[in-house]
Amino acid sequence: MTSFEPHSVKALVFDTFGTVVDWRGSIIREGETYWRVRGVDTDWAKLADAWRGGYGPAMNRVRSGDLGWTKLDTLHRIILDGIVAEHGLGGLDEDDREHLNKVWHRLDAWPDAVPALVRLHQRFVLGPLSNGNFSLLTNLGKHAGLPWDCILSTELCGHYKPDPETYRMAYELLDLEPAQVMMVAAHTQDLEAAKREGLRTAYVHRPLEGGPGRERPMPDAASFDVVADGYDDLARALLP
Amino acid sequence: MTSFEPHSVKALVFDTFGTVVDWRGSIIREGETYWRVRGVDTDWAKLADAWRGGYGPAMNRVRSGDLGWTKLDTLHRIILDGIVAEHGLGGLDEDDREHLNKVWHRLDAWPDAVPALVRLHQRFVLGPLSNGNFSLLTNLGKHAGLPWDCILSTELCGHYKPDPETYRMAYELLDLEPAQVMMVAAHTQDLEAAKREGLRTAYVHRPLEGGPGRERPMPDAASFDVVADGYDDLARALLP
Repeated sequence: MTSFEPHSVKALVFDTFGTVVDWRGSIIREGETYWRVRGVDTDWAKLADAWRGGYGPAMNRVRSGDLGWTKLDTLHRIILDGIVAEHGLGGLDEDDREHLNKVWHRLDAWPDAVPALVRLHQRFVLGPLSNGNFSLLTNLGKHAGLPWDCILSTELCGHYKPDPETYRMAYELLDLEPAQVMMVAAHTQDLEAAKREGLRTAYVHRPLEGGPGRERPMPDAASFDVVADGYDDLARALLP
Repeated sequence: MTSFEPHSVKALVFDTFGTVVDWRGSIIREGETYWRVRGVDTDWAKLADAWRGGYGPAMNRVRSGDLGWTKLDTLHRIILDGIVAEHGLGGLDEDDREHLNKVWHRLDAWPDAVPALVRLHQRFVLGPLSNGNFSLLTNLGKHAGLPWDCILSTELCGHYKPDPETYRMAYELLDLEPAQVMMVAAHTQDLEAAKREGLRTAYVHRPLEGGPGRERPMPDAASFDVVADGYDDLARALLP
């Protein structure tokens, strides 16, 4: 465990998909309400899993140079177009596909996130540090009522996390030292990469990101500056 | 007057210094409170005017290539260092100069701005589109309680307003058409430049920006999509 003083941290930057918002549950909910009443139906959990499953490989096409810099909205659409047929949604017209693709702008926050963020907002600068494009994160923050002070989309540096350029961008734009910025994520790979760039790190446990029956274990308490079992626990660790 | 439908606008982007925040009054207030009790005194109105007076020429040093891309915080500090002696503040040490320079992160909103912005926030994406650097605008939004959804600092494109790249950056990052974005400013030059890039434009009158006795006239009502005599008037024009 590093010696860690919450007072030395000025900004908290948040991974977003899975950490702040429940992408899987939100896609299922929109499917079973908005889309079902329009006669569009599928196994929305399976669609969400397949869609999210295409995310890493799609980013790797950008990293490898197979694709030039591409906004996440566009990657989401490429993935969606590749899976609609097998999910029985091949008949969706262009307007519907575009609307469905924007479901990533309409994800809901985990129920414990907003109350804790509102408290943390009184003491820290808060923003997403996410691979979502700038407009996606802006619209998502508004939809979910997230008290962001700024939007730190990796679109602003043309790299995807966990590339080191993304963490450097955060402290450079905020004019802070790396150790004055704390990365908050439910994913250890993101936190390990942030730590390598000198950021402080807070793990927040989101056991249901992948759905029921797919719980992931909590990391060891010494792995990061804070290891929190949810947002109340995070706020307790960071607020006086 | 162009035919203008408020419903077609998705985002309002705001000039900040003078339009949303009262830079002159705020600098005077901080001088006459924080600094005076520390034994630091000058004619704060004259200091504010000289400081702001150096802003255009300093940006022109960047535009002309005399200076490479420079954050506004750094320009503010260069200007300040050039005027402290003549304002009797030459004795300020480095820490005090740095703190004084950051007064631009601590400016207060015009009294009518926040209530109107809070109402407009329910319908539109709101953000500053300002030459303030990213950290300045982030800190300023937090200080003044501005309900920004995102920070559109011209630092993100390495150009200062009214260069056309700055207005293009706004609609590109927001993934909107130019006419879905409305520039709000108290300065006609900024609005004319935004209009040339296809943005909608709203003038909001701030007669006291330059201080008492220096009122500027309202432009003709047909000059911009909205010509508002203050923030209540702006909200009335844009909300149903």
